[in-house]
Amino acid sequence: MKATGIVVEYNPLHNGHVYHAQQARETSKADVVIAVMSGNFLQRGEPAFVDKWARTKMALQSGVDLVFELPYRFATAHAPIFARGAITLLDAVGCSSFCFGSEDGDITPFTNSLSLINQTETVYETVIKKAIQDGRSYPNALKEAYTSIQDNTSQTQLADLTKPNNILGFHYMEAAQCIGSMMKPTTIQRRGADYHEADLHAHKVASATGIRKSYFSTGSMDEMEPFVPQATKDILFDWQAERGHFGNWETFYPYLRYTILREGPIRLASIADITEGIENAIYRAALKHDAFQPFMAQVKSKRYTWTRIQRMLTHILTGFTVEQRETMPAPSYLRLLGMTGDGQTYLRSVKKHLTLPLISKVATLSNDSLTMDIRAADLYAMALGNCQHVPKIGLDYLTPPIRTHHFGSNDSK
Amino acid sequence: MKATGIVVEYNPLHNGHVYHAQQARETSKADVVIAVMSGNFLQRGEPAFVDKWARTKMALQSGVDLVFELPYRFATAHAPIFARGAITLLDAVGCSSFCFGSEDGDITPFTNSLSLINQTETVYETVIKKAIQDGRSYPNALKEAYTSIQDNTSQTQLADLTKPNNILGFHYMEAAQCIGSMMKPTTIQRRGADYHEADLHAHKVASATGIRKSYFSTGSMDEMEPFVPQATKDILFDWQAERGHFGNWETFYPYLRYTILREGPIRLASIADITEGIENAIYRAALKHDAFQPFMAQVKSKRYTWTRIQRMLTHILTGFTVEQRETMPAPSYLRLLGMTGDGQTYLRSVKKHLTLPLISKVATLSNDSLTMDIRAADLYAMALGNCQHVPKIGLDYLTPPIRTHHFGSNDSK
Repeated sequence: MKATGIVVEYNPLHNGHVYHAQQARETSKADVVIAVMSGNFLQRGEPAFVDKWARTKMALQSGVDLVFELPYRFATAHAPIFARGAITLLDAVGCSSFCFGSEDGDITPFTNSLSLINQTETVYETVIKKAIQDGRSYPNALKEAYTSIQDNTSQTQLADLTKPNNILGFHYMEAAQCIGSMMKPTTIQRRGADYHEADLHAHKVASATGIRKSYFSTGSMDEMEPFVPQATKDILFDWQAERGHFGNWETFYPYLRYTILREGPIRLASIADITEGIENAIYRAALKHDAFQPFMAQVKSKRYTWTRIQRMLTHILTGFTVEQRETMPAPSYLRLLGMTGDGQTYLRSVKKHLTLPLISKVATLSNDSLTMDIRAADLYAMALGNCQHVPKIGLDYLTPPIRTHHFGSNDSK
Repeated sequence: MKATGIVVEYNPLHNGHVYHAQQARETSKADVVIAVMSGNFLQRGEPAFVDKWARTKMALQSGVDLVFELPYRFATAHAPIFARGAITLLDAVGCSSFCFGSEDGDITPFTNSLSLINQTETVYETVIKKAIQDGRSYPNALKEAYTSIQDNTSQTQLADLTKPNNILGFHYMEAAQCIGSMMKPTTIQRRGADYHEADLHAHKVASATGIRKSYFSTGSMDEMEPFVPQATKDILFDWQAERGHFGNWETFYPYLRYTILREGPIRLASIADITEGIENAIYRAALKHDAFQPFMAQVKSKRYTWTRIQRMLTHILTGFTVEQRETMPAPSYLRLLGMTGDGQTYLRSVKKHLTLPLISKVATLSNDSLTMDIRAADLYAMALGNCQHVPKIGLDYLTPPIRTHHFGSNDSK
C-alpha cells in the first residue's frame, strides 16, 4: 500500500482542507492519506478552537486515513522546527511522498530555492545572523537573507518566501533533505479566501483564521456554514453543546494571567522562548490588564512578532521550560490519534517497518515529550473552563484512537 | 500612650473576638489595641473567607485600633514561626503587653511550662527529633516531648498543650522570650462554641470555623447572624453582593489543580513545606479528582496532618519556594492595613521609636517578603474568580490604610 503525508492543524477543518486531502491522494495515487496534526496548542502559539480529538474526527470524515499527533515541542515551535518534527513523523510512518499547499501549486521554484540556499549556505546564514543581531525578527531576517542570495543568481524561478504557506512548504523540503528522507515533495495550489468560488465546484473556501474570527465576533456558527463540510459543522455543534465555548486566548487569559503573576519575572525567564528580559514586560502587562487584547497590545513591540509572543505565552501556560525543550531534539514516537479502516489496514502492513514506536495507548510509553503532550491537553481542558458532563483531565488516557470511515465507506470494502 | 497587642485571623470576626479585644484593653489598661493579622492565606493553610481589607474593616469596628499584616511567610507557617513573626511585630510597634485567648485564662501554667522547657531543653528537643524521625507529625512530636518532661517534674500547674489555643499562646510566650521582648504576656479565657451564652450578656459565641461551615453548608448567612457583630454582617453582605462568593479551597481548587498539573512532581518538590516525595501523591490526586474534598482524602495519610498538607497547597497556589522562604528569616516591615483615630494618634507618638520601617504605601519599599504578600493577595483575588465591578489585581497598591472609628467614636474625641 502507498501512503502520502500532509501536515495539518485543522483549526477548524474547512473546505480548503478537504480539497488538499483529495488532491494529495489523487496526485500521488496513494492508497492512504496520513496527517500529522498539532495537538491542543498550535504553531502560531494559540490554544486550538477545539481539542485534538474533535479535530481528528473532522479529519477522518474529510479524506484523511490516519492522524498522528505532532508533539507539543514541535507543534508550538517556529517553522523550521515545526517542519522538522512533522516531516520526521511522515517519514517514520512510511510515506512515499508528502504534499503541501502553496500559492502557485508548482514544486519547481521550491526545488530551485532549496538548491540555491544549499549553494550559498554560508552567505545565507551570515545574513540571518547579522539581521537578528541588528534586532530584526526571525521571519524578517529570513526574508533579508533570501533576498540577498536571490540578488546574486540568474535563476528566475524561485519560491516566494514572503507567503506563510510557501515558507512552511520550503521548510518541509529542507527538513526532508536534512533527515535524508526519500519522500517525494509535492505541492498543490492553496485554495484560500482569495480564490474564486466557482473553481471549487460551488464550495466556498475561507481561511481557518477567518472562520474563527467570524465565530468569535458573531458568537454564532451561521456565518461559517458555507465554508466547512457537514462533518465539521456536526462536530462543532456537539462541542458547543458539551463545552459551551471554543478555545482562544481571551477564554484562556485568566489562567495565563494567574500563572504569570504566580511565577513572577525571575521564574518566567526559565520558560522556553522567553529571552532578553521580555519576562518583565509580560509580568507588568499581566499586572495591569484583565483582558487578553490590551495585555498583548502592551507586550507587543517591534522586536517580536505577535506569533513569537504568543508562543511564549503558550509555554508559560503549559510550564514548558528551556531545560525541558533541550531533552526533545527529535520526535521519538508515533502517537496515533485516529484511523479509518484503510488507515488501519495500512498500519498493519507497515507495522514492522516503522522507524519510531507506534503509540495507541499513552500508558504504554514513559517519555518526557509524551508527558508534555498529555499535560498540554490537560491544561487546555482546565483553562477552557467548566464542562460538567465531560471529563477534563486525563483524556489522553481515556481516549483510544478514534476509529471511523470516511465518505461513507465501510470496514469490509 | 499605652498599647497592648493581639494576634488574630478574624476569619470572620465574631462575638468571641470582640470580647477578646475588649478584655485585652481592659486587663492591660491600654489606650490602644494593636492587632497583627494574617493576610489572605491563613495559618491552617486556607484561603481566607474574605480578604485582608474586609477583615481589617471588621477589626476596626470591633475594638481594634491598629491592624498590621503578618507577612505571608509567617502567616502560613506552623505555630512556632507564626508566633515568632507576630510577636516580633507587636514588639516592634511598641506594645507593652500582649494578650492571647486560652482555655483557662490563667497565665501561670504557661509561665511554668515555659520555664520547665527551658530547664529541660536538651531532653525536650531530643524527644521531638526522635518522634519526627519515627514518623510522628510535628504536633504529635511536641505533645510527646511535653509529656516526657512533665513526667519528670513535681510542678503541677502546667499548661495543657493539647489545645490549639494553648499551643499558640505558649509559642507567643516562647517567641517573646526568644527575641528578648519586654512585653508582658497576658491571657483571657477563650469564649468558644462550648461556652455558655448567658455569660456573654446574651451574645452567642461560635467558632469562626463553625461560622464558615454553616455558611458553606447552607449557602446563607442567616445561621451565623447571632454569632457575629453587626459590622461583620454588613461587611460580609457587601462582599457577597460584590464578589458573589467567599473564599475556601473548594472555590480555589480549579486554580490549585491547574497549577499542580502544570508544575508536575519535579517542580512541585521545590515548593516550601513539600518533602519526602509527597509531591507525587499530590500530583496523582490532582490528576484524578475534580473537587477538593476527594483530592484531599487521597493525599491525606497518617504521616501528615490535614493542616500541614493545606499549607503545602497554599504554597503551591502562590508559588512560594523553599528558596524564597530562606530569604525571610524575620519580619522586616510593619505593614499598616488600617487604623482608628486613636490608632493614628498612637502611631504618631511612637513613630520615631519603631524598630521596623512602617509601610503605609507598599510602593515605598522594595522587599521580597512584601512582594510575596502582594502576590498572595493578587492570586487570592484571581482564584476567587470573576467579579466585574471590583479591581482584582494590585489592590495592595490601590488600597490606602483603612481609616475608621470604632464604637461610634469620632476623630475629635
